[in-house]
Amino acid sequence: MATVYLKLTTITISPSKPRTHLRFNPSTSALPSSKSTEPLPLFSSVKSFAPATVANLGPGFDFLGCAVDGIGDHVTLRLDPSVQPGELAISHISGAGSRLSKNPLWNCAGIAAISVMKMLGIRSVGFTLSLDKGLPLGSGLGSSAASAAAAAVAVNELFGSILSPSELVIAGLESEAKVSGYHADNVAPSILGGFVLIRSYEPLELMQLKFPHEKSLYFVLVNPEFEAPTKKMRAALPSDVTMSNHIWNCSQAGALVASVLQGDLIGLGKALSSDKIVEPRRAPLIPGMEAVKKTAIEAGAFGCTISGAGPTAVAVTDSEERGREIGERMVEAFWKVGKLKSLAMVKQLDRVGARLVSCVAR
Amino acid sequence: MATVYLKLTTITISPSKPRTHLRFNPSTSALPSSKSTEPLPLFSSVKSFAPATVANLGPGFDFLGCAVDGIGDHVTLRLDPSVQPGELAISHISGAGSRLSKNPLWNCAGIAAISVMKMLGIRSVGFTLSLDKGLPLGSGLGSSAASAAAAAVAVNELFGSILSPSELVIAGLESEAKVSGYHADNVAPSILGGFVLIRSYEPLELMQLKFPHEKSLYFVLVNPEFEAPTKKMRAALPSDVTMSNHIWNCSQAGALVASVLQGDLIGLGKALSSDKIVEPRRAPLIPGMEAVKKTAIEAGAFGCTISGAGPTAVAVTDSEERGREIGERMVEAFWKVGKLKSLAMVKQLDRVGARLVSCVAR
Repeated sequence: MATVYLKLTTITISPSKPRTHLRFNPSTSALPSSKSTEPLPLFSSVKSFAPATVANLGPGFDFLGCAVDGIGDHVTLRLDPSVQPGELAISHISGAGSRLSKNPLWNCAGIAAISVMKMLGIRSVGFTLSLDKGLPLGSGLGSSAASAAAAAVAVNELFGSILSPSELVIAGLESEAKVSGYHADNVAPSILGGFVLIRSYEPLELMQLKFPHEKSLYFVLVNPEFEAPTKKMRAALPSDVTMSNHIWNCSQAGALVASVLQGDLIGLGKALSSDKIVEPRRAPLIPGMEAVKKTAIEAGAFGCTISGAGPTAVAVTDSEERGREIGERMVEAFWKVGKLKSLAMVKQLDRVGARLVSCVAR
Repeated sequence: MATVYLKLTTITISPSKPRTHLRFNPSTSALPSSKSTEPLPLFSSVKSFAPATVANLGPGFDFLGCAVDGIGDHVTLRLDPSVQPGELAISHISGAGSRLSKNPLWNCAGIAAISVMKMLGIRSVGFTLSLDKGLPLGSGLGSSAASAAAAAVAVNELFGSILSPSELVIAGLESEAKVSGYHADNVAPSILGGFVLIRSYEPLELMQLKFPHEKSLYFVLVNPEFEAPTKKMRAALPSDVTMSNHIWNCSQAGALVASVLQGDLIGLGKALSSDKIVEPRRAPLIPGMEAVKKTAIEAGAFGCTISGAGPTAVAVTDSEERGREIGERMVEAFWKVGKLKSLAMVKQLDRVGARLVSCVAR
C-alpha cells in the first residue's frame, strides 16, 4: 500500500509513477500497493457520485481546481458472480456518455476502478459497473475525472472505505493519464471536494485550500454547443512565456490562493480574470468567449475565465439569483457574438467531493 | 490625497504612476495627492525604525516579501528653522551608510521623506534628517527600502500619522524606483510588517498575508562579504521561461502563500527552496551559495534560498537555538566552499513594520 503522510491540510503520497499501460486483470499485477490480505466486500452493490470540477481557474493553470456541487457522474458497482473473480465488466453507460467505450481498459471509470481493485488486492470477486454520465464530454468540467472519481470511490466503499481519499486520487490519476493527460487538477478536487492545489507529482502532494464555511460562492457555468478538444487546446499553449508575464501570473496565482483561503470573493474573481498566458491563447479558439467574459463582468460577476480547457465559461458571484442573471447574459453573448447555443447553470462550491450515495448489504 | 480602499486584508490604492524625476521642493509640485490644508507638526523631532526585509522568497520572485524583526534602519527627523520652509536637509548618515549621498534627491530616505511632504502639502516648515543605517548596503536585506520606510514614517508621524501605511508605501516606492528599481516587495513589507504580496502596480494593490500569531518563524540570515549588485543579479535573469518551469513556479508560489496563511512551516520552507527559474541563475554568481543552501537543509532548516538579489542566504526554522546551529553551519559552508567570510543572524518575523520609536513634543 502507498505510504500516506497527512499533516494539516497537506497530503503527501509516495510516488505511483505514471504508467501508460494498465492490465485488465489486477490479480496478476505486482503493484507495490497491493494488499497482502484481501478484504471482504461489505455490500453487494454501491452507488457513488463524483462532482464536476473547474480546473485552471485562470492563473492556477495546471495545478489548481475546485469541485462544483449538484452536477457530476454516478457509478453503480455490483458484485457479479458471472464476472471472472478479480475482473470488472461495464454493463451500461447512460446519460451523456453514449460514445464511451465499454471496455474497462479504455473507459475512465473502468481504469480507475481496476486501479483501486489492484490497490486493495481484490482477487476473489468480480464486478459489474454501470456509469450514469451527468456531465457532457469535452466540456471543460472534468467529465472523465468525475467518472474516474465516482468509480474509485465505489470500489473503495464496497469494501468498507479502506483507502484514503488521497490514495483514491492516485487511482483516478492513472485513469486521467490514459484518457486525458497526467493531470490531477480535475480528479483531485472531484475526490477531495473544495479547492485543491497540486503541489507536486513525484511524490504526489496535494494541498486542500479551505474556503471559509460561512461564505457563499456560486459558479456560473455556461456550456456552449462547441467542441474544444483538450489536445487542440493544449497545442494552443506557448512553449515559453516572458519573464514579465510569468511574474504577473505567479503573483495572481498567489493572490488567487490567498483569496480562496480568506474567502475574499472579489479578490478571487479578480484573480480568476487575470491570466495573461493561457486564456489569451485559448479564448480566441472558442467563438464568443472574449465577449462572454466581458459580458459576465459587466453583469456583475466578480471574475470570469475558461473552465478547464473549455469550451465552458465559468464566472463567480455571491448569490444564486445574481448568478442566474449573469448566466442569461452570458448565454446571450455566446449566441450574439459566437453564434453558439449554450446552457447556463448556477452551482455552489462542492465541499465534500466524491461520495457514497446508496448501498445494498450482502 | 490618494483614494484608499481598505477591504479585509486587501489594500487598493489609486495609481501613483512611476516617476523617474522627483523635485526637491515639494511645495512647488502639483501632485494630485497634495493636501489642500497644510497640517501642523505635532512634534519637534521624531525617531523611527523600519525593519529589514526578505524579498522574493524563492517562487515569490518580484511580488512577495516579508519583514524581519530587530534589524533595520533608524531615521531621526527634526523641525529645523535654518532649513528653507518646505525643504529637507540630510545632516548625518551613520552606521553602514557612509558612502551614501547626503543630497536628499539622491538618498533613498530623502526621496521618501520629500514624497511624504508632498502628499501632506508641507510648505511652512523645514527639516533636518539623520539616518542611522543598521543594514549593510547591497546585502539583499532591503537596505534602501528600510531607509525609505523609516523616513516616510518619520515625516508622517511628525504630523500626527495622517497618511495610511499603504499611502506611505507609495512614497517609499518612489524612492525605490529611483534607487533600486520600481519594486515594492521590500518597501511594502518594511512599512506594513509581516508578509506582503504585491498584487498589481497600476493601481498599486497589496495583500497582507497574516502568518498565524501562535506560530514561531525564525529566519537565519547569513550575509557574506561579497558584493552582488542588483543590476548584475537582474542581468542574470532569463528573458523567457519554459511553460513547464512557469507552471512549477506558479504552483510553488501558490503553495508558499497557502503555507504562510496556514502557518505551515514545513510547507513554507519547501516552497522557499523550490524556485526553478531565478535562484538557479543567481546562485552560481554567489560563491558557495549552492553549498550553503544544501548545508542549511541538512542542518534541519525547512528551506533556504537567496534573500532578495543576494548575496545574503536566508533559511527558515522554528526555534532560535536551531537557527543558531543552522547559521553556524551556513557560515562554515560559505567559508569552505565559497572562500567568503560571513555573518549569521537569527531573526523572527516582524509583524509590525516601520514604527515610531520616540518623539519630542514641540
